[in-house]
Amino acid sequence: MTKKASSSSKETDRKSAGPKFVWTRKDLVGLDELSADEIVHILDTAQTFQEVSTRSIKKVPALRGKVVALLFFEDSTRTRMSFELAASRLSADTVFLSGKGSSTSKGETTLDTVRNVEAMGVDAFVIRHSQSGAPHQLTEKVKVPIINAGDGQHEHPTQGLLDIFTIRQRLGSLEGVKVAIVGDIAHSRVARSNIIGLRKLGAEVVVVGPPTLVPSTITAMGCEISHSLDDILDEVDVINMLRIQFERFESNLFPSLREYSSLFGMNAKRLAKCNKNVLIMHPGPINRGVELTSEVADGPNSCILQQVTNGLAVRMAVLYLVSRGRD
Amino acid sequence: MTKKASSSSKETDRKSAGPKFVWTRKDLVGLDELSADEIVHILDTAQTFQEVSTRSIKKVPALRGKVVALLFFEDSTRTRMSFELAASRLSADTVFLSGKGSSTSKGETTLDTVRNVEAMGVDAFVIRHSQSGAPHQLTEKVKVPIINAGDGQHEHPTQGLLDIFTIRQRLGSLEGVKVAIVGDIAHSRVARSNIIGLRKLGAEVVVVGPPTLVPSTITAMGCEISHSLDDILDEVDVINMLRIQFERFESNLFPSLREYSSLFGMNAKRLAKCNKNVLIMHPGPINRGVELTSEVADGPNSCILQQVTNGLAVRMAVLYLVSRGRD
Amino acid sequence: MTKKASSSSKETDRKSAGPKFVWTRKDLVGLDELSADEIVHILDTAQTFQEVSTRSIKKVPALRGKVVALLFFEDSTRTRMSFELAASRLSADTVFLSGKGSSTSKGETTLDTVRNVEAMGVDAFVIRHSQSGAPHQLTEKVKVPIINAGDGQHEHPTQGLLDIFTIRQRLGSLEGVKVAIVGDIAHSRVARSNIIGLRKLGAEVVVVGPPTLVPSTITAMGCEISHSLDDILDEVDVINMLRIQFERFESNLFPSLREYSSLFGMNAKRLAKCNKNVLIMHPGPINRGVELTSEVADGPNSCILQQVTNGLAVRMAVLYLVSRGRD
Repeated sequence: MTKKASSSSKETDRKSAGPKFVWTRKDLVGLDELSADEIVHILDTAQTFQEVSTRSIKKVPALRGKVVALLFFEDSTRTRMSFELAASRLSADTVFLSGKGSSTSKGETTLDTVRNVEAMGVDAFVIRHSQSGAPHQLTEKVKVPIINAGDGQHEHPTQGLLDIFTIRQRLGSLEGVKVAIVGDIAHSRVARSNIIGLRKLGAEVVVVGPPTLVPSTITAMGCEISHSLDDILDEVDVINMLRIQFERFESNLFPSLREYSSLFGMNAKRLAKCNKNVLIMHPGPINRGVELTSEVADGPNSCILQQVTNGLAVRMAVLYLVSRGRD
Repeated sequence: MTKKASSSSKETDRKSAGPKFVWTRKDLVGLDELSADEIVHILDTAQTFQEVSTRSIKKVPALRGKVVALLFFEDSTRTRMSFELAASRLSADTVFLSGKGSSTSKGETTLDTVRNVEAMGVDAFVIRHSQSGAPHQLTEKVKVPIINAGDGQHEHPTQGLLDIFTIRQRLGSLEGVKVAIVGDIAHSRVARSNIIGLRKLGAEVVVVGPPTLVPSTITAMGCEISHSLDDILDEVDVINMLRIQFERFESNLFPSLREYSSLFGMNAKRLAKCNKNVLIMHPGPINRGVELTSEVADGPNSCILQQVTNGLAVRMAVLYLVSRGRD
Repeated sequence: MTKKASSSSKETDRKSAGPKFVWTRKDLVGLDELSADEIVHILDTAQTFQEVSTRSIKKVPALRGKVVALLFFEDSTRTRMSFELAASRLSADTVFLSGKGSSTSKGETTLDTVRNVEAMGVDAFVIRHSQSGAPHQLTEKVKVPIINAGDGQHEHPTQGLLDIFTIRQRLGSLEGVKVAIVGDIAHSRVARSNIIGLRKLGAEVVVVGPPTLVPSTITAMGCEISHSLDDILDEVDVINMLRIQFERFESNLFPSLREYSSLFGMNAKRLAKCNKNVLIMHPGPINRGVELTSEVADGPNSCILQQVTNGLAVRMAVLYLVSRGRD
């Protein structure tokens, strides 16, 4: 969908960005299964949808009459809203099921719940689940496309894609870009999806955190390890600060909050040691004064709110690609 | 709406199936109040809507600009989603109120809550309530149509209708069909709506369960009683397994879960003793290994997911009939 | 929008009632900031939308493609539904975030939550917050219009407007009308918005309640004080009964429930002493037998349900005015 094409007709709105590339996947479970071409195709499609978001009427009829079922077995206000708005901009209807109060709490299996909603005639699933691998297992059992909105400590592909989209938008390309990912690497699906996607598109990745949270085996994913944030500040183009999960502090994997913040938090002093145009990212919600100070979060290097805006375009692209494939 | 007619125009979409029959009821509180003709008219209307669900764009403009208020004083994810999607396919908007956090919890009466929502200008109510008879009492006090989505131990008419619709779809007719309903008959609104509707359309019903859960007075509804599932296996065309409410076990009305399952659960061994084409039904959510084994639930005789699909068509029909009556 | 104009075209639907008045405000935080002309303009606009609610298809395309985000940091079923339906009648989409389970509960600041939702590209905010002044602070930090749906003990402007709209509808004008507001004046945002708006439009206000709940400083807002309901019954045209917040009884600010009801509750005996056409109002949900008896609540002087109906028209007007201003 080029800018020229998008203003012509409904039919044109449904054409994809890459004229030669044909999307064939039913599901999006993780970036691990995607080729570099597929990732780029999603980013390109998202870019065309970005334009829709600047219109006064932010809707295209691409998925009119379709129903997207949002099954959040694990709660998430922010990701739910982003997918809900993305579906709405494509003119799809949504239906929502949360973990609390769902049939799952009545002893029904996840598969039975999903099959039941499928039997109601929905056209796509967006599934968040606390169990790693749950969306993947479901893809083999249901005919309707499944988009993984985060599963356990496995992947959060649309978060990875929106982060990569944002870097490409700001730096022009991923090739040769060096990205630091800082925090609890061991338990983070956001880190995993970022590392996998960034590496496939030619970026370098260094993961940063205390040894308890950065397993040495992570180098198998093609990234470097640093236990000192200060050491890598002047080497990187992007610093992606992971959200601190406070519950981890109780598990003795984390130093104290104060110590963590002093060693791995971004502040003005550290920012001064960085590349002048370094991008500061965070998947949100942010803990001001912990992962980063307000000065950094609200400063000119931060693209945290742009990430949120881009999330909609990326989710529109993914919903569109997997749903269109079924026609 | 014949298949021929449905492809012509919007106006044609709004015509009802039976060319002579005119629906006159404001509400649907239970099958008890309906004539056999009225039940058949709902089933026929549902059949025409079934076709809508096979389209790529699953919407008809029948209730465009109307608002359906879903008032679930008692929670239910599944029935809520089914009504929500049914309304959406008719192009109606929905507004949802759950028991938790509603004004009821602030000391407001149910009637005041309903009258307030009525004053907001909604066009139909779908009401679930833990108190038997609540929807009926409300029908006399509000002008807007009320559809009962389950009230206490009284009726669950759309569940009864979708079960009957499924049997008619699979067996062609209800006349002379013999249906077993298995489980906690005494406390089940699903059982009651099924028995009433099935009897009106000429089917025979045998209710099956331990004496504590099958009151002898139920024969007044025109059904037989059996305390042995094995005894009736080869006599019936349909076996409808009710969901076990685990909380009843604590009340001493139920034998142990294991004993219940061994006496009244469907499994491959029992299925082998049935009519080869016997239909296995369940209102869901199922407890695998309790009411039925996975082998039976997922086997060729099971029409459990078809029931879910049919639920949408039946609820579209009911929403359409009661809302159209007001124009 | 005159009745004549409203039946012509979509474009005409978007014209405002007062041909000369131009609405310029981005936000609606309280009636305190509005001029009398602005209040009247909202009432006039609401009156034109009242007509929409009598149509069979209760929708106008005024806000098609726009998204209204309902951020209820403090829960409210009734106000949420009213705004949701108002947005829907203007053809806007809505997205909902409740206090429970929101990112706020993960330690995110209210401002960060609001900025995040803004970054998702929404077109208007409806915000309820337990903290007085929260919506006002947010208006300076976000570009998207903010409508205050109730903040702490500060204001509830759309409730004030719908009450004033109802009085004008029934009595023709506010000029010289005398309104009693009865109950916990000290802690009520409903009382504050009413007093401010009524005074600006030329009505007289007497606030009624026990000394613990009616601060003497309230006279600075231009209203009289009475500690006896009986004393003012024959002087007033309108009696607006505030809802009792039961939790206040524990704070020793209230007499016993029984004493409160006998001193400040409306009943048939008191109604007999009033002006024959006195209007009895209540913001709901009502506690029958406490603020008023059923005889009064359901009697000919009550306009409680009309208030609810009018609430939709007023909220449509406010959503329309603040959203249109951005085009």
